[in-house]
Amino acid sequence: MIKVTVWGENVHERTNDVVAKVYPDGMHAVIAAALGADSSIETTTATLDQDDEHGLSEELLAQTDVLTWWGHAAHGKVKDEIVERVKKRVLEGMGLIVLHSGHYSKIFKSLMGTTCSLTWREAGEKERLWVCNPGHPIVQGIDKYFELPHVEMYGEPFAVPVPDEQIFISWFEGGEVFRSGMVFNRGNGKVFYFCPGHETYPIYYDENIQLVLKNAVKYLHRPEGTWVDSCPNVPVDQAPEPITRQGEGLHQDGDEGFK
Amino acid sequence: MIKVTVWGENVHERTNDVVAKVYPDGMHAVIAAALGADSSIETTTATLDQDDEHGLSEELLAQTDVLTWWGHAAHGKVKDEIVERVKKRVLEGMGLIVLHSGHYSKIFKSLMGTTCSLTWREAGEKERLWVCNPGHPIVQGIDKYFELPHVEMYGEPFAVPVPDEQIFISWFEGGEVFRSGMVFNRGNGKVFYFCPGHETYPIYYDENIQLVLKNAVKYLHRPEGTWVDSCPNVPVDQAPEPITRQGEGLHQDGDEGFK
Amino acid sequence: MIKVTVWGENVHERTNDVVAKVYPDGMHAVIAAALGADSSIETTTATLDQDDEHGLSEELLAQTDVLTWWGHAAHGKVKDEIVERVKKRVLEGMGLIVLHSGHYSKIFKSLMGTTCSLTWREAGEKERLWVCNPGHPIVQGIDKYFELPHVEMYGEPFAVPVPDEQIFISWFEGGEVFRSGMVFNRGNGKVFYFCPGHETYPIYYDENIQLVLKNAVKYLHRPEGTWVDSCPNVPVDQAPEPITRQGEGLHQDGDEGFK
Amino acid sequence: MIKVTVWGENVHERTNDVVAKVYPDGMHAVIAAALGADSSIETTTATLDQDDEHGLSEELLAQTDVLTWWGHAAHGKVKDEIVERVKKRVLEGMGLIVLHSGHYSKIFKSLMGTTCSLTWREAGEKERLWVCNPGHPIVQGIDKYFELPHVEMYGEPFAVPVPDEQIFISWFEGGEVFRSGMVFNRGNGKVFYFCPGHETYPIYYDENIQLVLKNAVKYLHRPEGTWVDSCPNVPVDQAPEPITRQGEGLHQDGDEGFK
Repeated sequence: MIKVTVWGENVHERTNDVVAKVYPDGMHAVIAAALGADSSIETTTATLDQDDEHGLSEELLAQTDVLTWWGHAAHGKVKDEIVERVKKRVLEGMGLIVLHSGHYSKIFKSLMGTTCSLTWREAGEKERLWVCNPGHPIVQGIDKYFELPHVEMYGEPFAVPVPDEQIFISWFEGGEVFRSGMVFNRGNGKVFYFCPGHETYPIYYDENIQLVLKNAVKYLHRPEGTWVDSCPNVPVDQAPEPITRQGEGLHQDGDEGFK
Repeated sequence: MIKVTVWGENVHERTNDVVAKVYPDGMHAVIAAALGADSSIETTTATLDQDDEHGLSEELLAQTDVLTWWGHAAHGKVKDEIVERVKKRVLEGMGLIVLHSGHYSKIFKSLMGTTCSLTWREAGEKERLWVCNPGHPIVQGIDKYFELPHVEMYGEPFAVPVPDEQIFISWFEGGEVFRSGMVFNRGNGKVFYFCPGHETYPIYYDENIQLVLKNAVKYLHRPEGTWVDSCPNVPVDQAPEPITRQGEGLHQDGDEGFK
Repeated sequence: MIKVTVWGENVHERTNDVVAKVYPDGMHAVIAAALGADSSIETTTATLDQDDEHGLSEELLAQTDVLTWWGHAAHGKVKDEIVERVKKRVLEGMGLIVLHSGHYSKIFKSLMGTTCSLTWREAGEKERLWVCNPGHPIVQGIDKYFELPHVEMYGEPFAVPVPDEQIFISWFEGGEVFRSGMVFNRGNGKVFYFCPGHETYPIYYDENIQLVLKNAVKYLHRPEGTWVDSCPNVPVDQAPEPITRQGEGLHQDGDEGFK
Repeated sequence: MIKVTVWGENVHERTNDVVAKVYPDGMHAVIAAALGADSSIETTTATLDQDDEHGLSEELLAQTDVLTWWGHAAHGKVKDEIVERVKKRVLEGMGLIVLHSGHYSKIFKSLMGTTCSLTWREAGEKERLWVCNPGHPIVQGIDKYFELPHVEMYGEPFAVPVPDEQIFISWFEGGEVFRSGMVFNRGNGKVFYFCPGHETYPIYYDENIQLVLKNAVKYLHRPEGTWVDSCPNVPVDQAPEPITRQGEGLHQDGDEGFK
């Protein structure tokens, strides 16, 4: 079983009537149910205000194969300590699916190293997601494209590094385009950014969206386990080859401590 | 004229006799003199303890085309606010040359999104830097390889994303290898990581090192200027195409405020 | 002066009245005039039937800094020998701008290693090219986007490797999207694929198109010269380090001849 | 079961006594036996002179999940038609492992688009392969590095595009370095270049080499099947969106025939 933790900010759902009507139990509940319907996936949910760790304890993350992240109104309320904890796990090999407005989350910006800015408009317009990479595991079962009738538009320029894999590019009714599905390799983990998911539209009930998310979970999962790195000193007597060490006199005591 | 700011931590030079003997005025002074010897480069220096902005005022950074960064013992003392200021400028288009132990600086880790760990040993061994990309502007004037007689070894695995350009790979006497010169595109800026430069060896006096640094400054400089991004709303009446807006009813007032 | 050779297939212009009316002297003539209007660019033209080398002699290519390539109806008539000659120069450092239907030219497919397939429709629809990389030299002077009123649509999936730089993505009236401007590093040269340019529309008279082409020429030009590679044997007595050669007995005479 | 076809040039083994002694049944036999020892892998072999298709019939390739390729003395004897057949399958999703001197094979050069040149020396020296990507599926079970006592040296610069994944970098006794394990995504397939394997040394009997090859087969295999592309016309009446077609008058009859 692939263990997925679905993280939801869960703010709009409690403060906005429109959103509450679409997602009465929160977006995280709908996403978790969709993923959990797959017999190889086991889900847990966690939310911002669940506890003082935003529901993301060391124990839970250690057992999480893939984490999904939805946030929007409260990016700034996510504690830096928890962001570092999540990032550490991604770099060790945990998969991370960043959804929609998560482009501006601390965790995504931290993994990209760029501003992650874009252009946007909320007008309930139509989005058509084109598959750029038809043989890719993430799009199996998806046709050449699929549509969402009402979305928030996200447009280029999207300020991220060149991705490792380009999966989707979107066409918007209002005239914009957007790289709406991309995979970034970071450390031993993979990050999948997936654009759709505005809180006022029932996007996570969409069958194609659910299929992409299931495929992505399977693609990001590393059955071989994860890998913890360090910055180890290799002492001279453990060097693979002999060293003449003519420069030894310059060695400065205690340098090891700087790392 | 290309305006270069040479930033030096300048801690070892004042606290360690070996280092002070090699670099009596600080490493930054030697690097700045080497770069300034090129008629197209104008240099300024800045150091950690120079003032409460580490010598990196908004004004200076706004006028800097390329910044070089050397730090080791005091990465943790660089204020987060100054790191963000430097990062903002890199993403706008300022070039950044990260030297040696700068692999663990806040600014480099922040731009890479990974741990930037490596293996290391200080034994004064020989390093041979091989050119992987002989037609690249950064290696013009450099032969197939060049050598440094005494260095600190940095070895693989180097935990960074796949680079945009692979410039050098090093061979070490003690048996390791290292991707010792790489270019990463981040936002509108370019980052050049260059491995050599341990403080106890006279590496910045080396002619090949100085040539690589001059070439890198010219390669990272963007004569067309820099670009400041944002995350702009594109109102419906400014959309390139008409929008049916069937989903308008779902619009939530004040959503613009979330960005 | 940057020396640009503008290559045109020049078939449609002579066989189709619609095209002849738009480009009476051939598309290459319009492109060359546009580029040549820049004081730093000097142009030559060459066409498929000009001579038995398609106008691309060794001498001309040796002096060409950047080559532009437009072909459509007669990809198969370009001799393999000339394709190899052009490819060799690109890998040495000559810039190559591949235009529109050149996506299926022998030279582009050969440099990409993939099928370079796409989807297409000719209906005179509108194309809007969005800038993905606003600080890039190729888009200086271009606004957030520009439009072409009538084009042939090219759509995703575009079967190329992930590019080194994503410059433009296009929106089409008929509902498709396309990665319409991309830079690929190949050997010591850079390849810029640029989508617009169907022969029945006056696209190469467009000011934005002409500006992009001028910018691209300057970006692809390598003032430091080009680099010719080989696959050299490094004899044992020229090895940087001594070799124990315990395996010497296995050495097979004449192996050098295989390369 | 993953179906692997092990292709061997099988020339040296029949013409050179040293090689025949190391590989009496051919290198392909040893590689196939090693892979076949894994319970999830089923192997077939094919060789240059087996029949007039080099043993690579359409039927065999259609059923092959991963192909391994070793060639050296007879690259020029591989028919272009068979190279195209193999390439088509790689772009559809078949994995390809290119071994050692296969860097100069037609199939590898064709997929890379570059010269694939390198430097080399045959002196039976020691090679140490460092893992650059410790969490990667291909290196599971491999320590930080492993050594081969006697190899042909391959050195930088290796004229290939920047890889999608950097797996190994080698250190050589004689002083060179080499990017000895890299993954390149091409179309829907993945290509793994793996440096070791000179014919005069018993490299394919090495346990670490065999483990890497088994891991690579599993990593390159696409259980979701492969994907055949085309360059389809999307007629106007099948466009996702209505088109004003103001440019229709310019349409040129029969243009579809050009593709």
